[in-house]
Amino acid sequence: MRRAATANGIGIMDVLASWARDFESVIDSMLVPDPAVPPVLSEAVRYSVQGGKRVRAFIVTRICELCGGTAEMAAPAAVALECVHAFSLVHDDLPAMDDDDLRRGRPTCHKAFGEAEAILAGDALLALAFEIPATGIVEPAVVKAVVAELAKGTGWAGMIGGQTTDIQSEAQPPELGLVQRIHRYKTARLFVTAGRLGAYCARAEEAQLAAASAYGQHLGLAFQIADDLLDVTGSAEQMGKAVAKDAEAGKQTYPGAVGIEASRAAARDEVRKAIQALEIFGPAAEDLRQLANYIVERRH
Amino acid sequence: MRRAATANGIGIMDVLASWARDFESVIDSMLVPDPAVPPVLSEAVRYSVQGGKRVRAFIVTRICELCGGTAEMAAPAAVALECVHAFSLVHDDLPAMDDDDLRRGRPTCHKAFGEAEAILAGDALLALAFEIPATGIVEPAVVKAVVAELAKGTGWAGMIGGQTTDIQSEAQPPELGLVQRIHRYKTARLFVTAGRLGAYCARAEEAQLAAASAYGQHLGLAFQIADDLLDVTGSAEQMGKAVAKDAEAGKQTYPGAVGIEASRAAARDEVRKAIQALEIFGPAAEDLRQLANYIVERRH
Repeated sequence: MRRAATANGIGIMDVLASWARDFESVIDSMLVPDPAVPPVLSEAVRYSVQGGKRVRAFIVTRICELCGGTAEMAAPAAVALECVHAFSLVHDDLPAMDDDDLRRGRPTCHKAFGEAEAILAGDALLALAFEIPATGIVEPAVVKAVVAELAKGTGWAGMIGGQTTDIQSEAQPPELGLVQRIHRYKTARLFVTAGRLGAYCARAEEAQLAAASAYGQHLGLAFQIADDLLDVTGSAEQMGKAVAKDAEAGKQTYPGAVGIEASRAAARDEVRKAIQALEIFGPAAEDLRQLANYIVERRH
Repeated sequence: MRRAATANGIGIMDVLASWARDFESVIDSMLVPDPAVPPVLSEAVRYSVQGGKRVRAFIVTRICELCGGTAEMAAPAAVALECVHAFSLVHDDLPAMDDDDLRRGRPTCHKAFGEAEAILAGDALLALAFEIPATGIVEPAVVKAVVAELAKGTGWAGMIGGQTTDIQSEAQPPELGLVQRIHRYKTARLFVTAGRLGAYCARAEEAQLAAASAYGQHLGLAFQIADDLLDVTGSAEQMGKAVAKDAEAGKQTYPGAVGIEASRAAARDEVRKAIQALEIFGPAAEDLRQLANYIVERRH
């Protein structure tokens, strides 16, 4: 039905939005606090996980399906990855980090619940990201692969390492190599994880795993370059968060390093490579191709 | 050798200290950053994991051995639990939380490396706590059990939930039920996890798992009551951290709720129950019995 809708001319944005609405109930079903959870913590956790576009979860699910699995098989890993993403936003928004007040069109977690509560809600989301696959995936070998990949993609040699480099590089002169390293770890690494999780959940072959990784890598880089561009060219209303903050904070950005036009070209190049990586999956991967194209055309 | 030394009259403090020295090299071998890790992050992570008494790792290892396993089988889970413990200390010490400057006799992580770096180092330690067992334990079924238990013990219905209740209850009048709930989740839950991880690593029987859980629960409660008492009666030099901070911060403590003598009696009662739980393991559990007794007699 999803692919038919696409073929009928409904854009990938609508497909994704419709899929994300259905996926909310999957998230809800896996984020049920037991009575021991303090109410403020369960509220802060659920608040922080709401409202995303669910791009990462969509990739996990679709790659799993393209490798011969089902959406049900991908669900715990897809929810887990959204928990990691939400955790990273909650902590990145903290006063000691990027100090943001607005996220997904609403007050950031620490603005809504307090700073200590936001630190703890982020921590709880990260723990949930491992509890959900460890308890929700039946096959132990898949749990082992999924947990190892999630932890590596998230950890000190992954997204958290990238955020550290980002924070440390503030107010340094823009430098392309540095920007690329930050983008690769801070953003693209979790898209690689998205692709790999989908493949693991379907017990995919090595070639499919490699293709899923490459798609995630290039899509993630395109995504972050586009995000840098939107920070320069977008409005706060479109983005649901503060804009023009990167330059103000002395952030390393692609447009800061090479200018707007070269950044647009770089994003298009990554999209092309992402689409190329999908070749192994044939015409069935049409929605992931459209997703790649949408990434550089999006307005928020 | 360990038990012989104990029988010869060398106290459990010395046994534990000697074991902990050997265990440092196990931790080091599992915390090797790959070149992608930013140096400041790997330094902050390794700094934060240094210097603990390794009580939790000792319990994981000894329970595993008592259930028929080896120290080698327990090592990834034991290191993982020390990572969770270190993560919790780094985040609890943050200015937005308990705002501590001193930990294990040295500046806290945020004092030594900066606040953003400390948030990220804590996050990285939590991710490592899952990466280490997922990659270091061979048997997928053990990985699944260990990761699920670690995540539950750490998460919103575990230690993080307990810390949330602790923060939320500051400046409320001391109340025994509330103190007990905080102690159970904030502290004892991770000792339960220690016992359970040891049992899982040895593929123990259900009765051994239950005994290991009960030992952890009672030992953890005794440990936290003793910690509350030391905050009242100890010196900063002995403790390696600031003291008399609980009352100042309006913390819920056992002595605050029921007084010093009743707290001592409660700690002794928990120690008695912890020792009772070890019955199933016979004389071989002598060092864990001594550990329980030491908990209430310790000076730091």
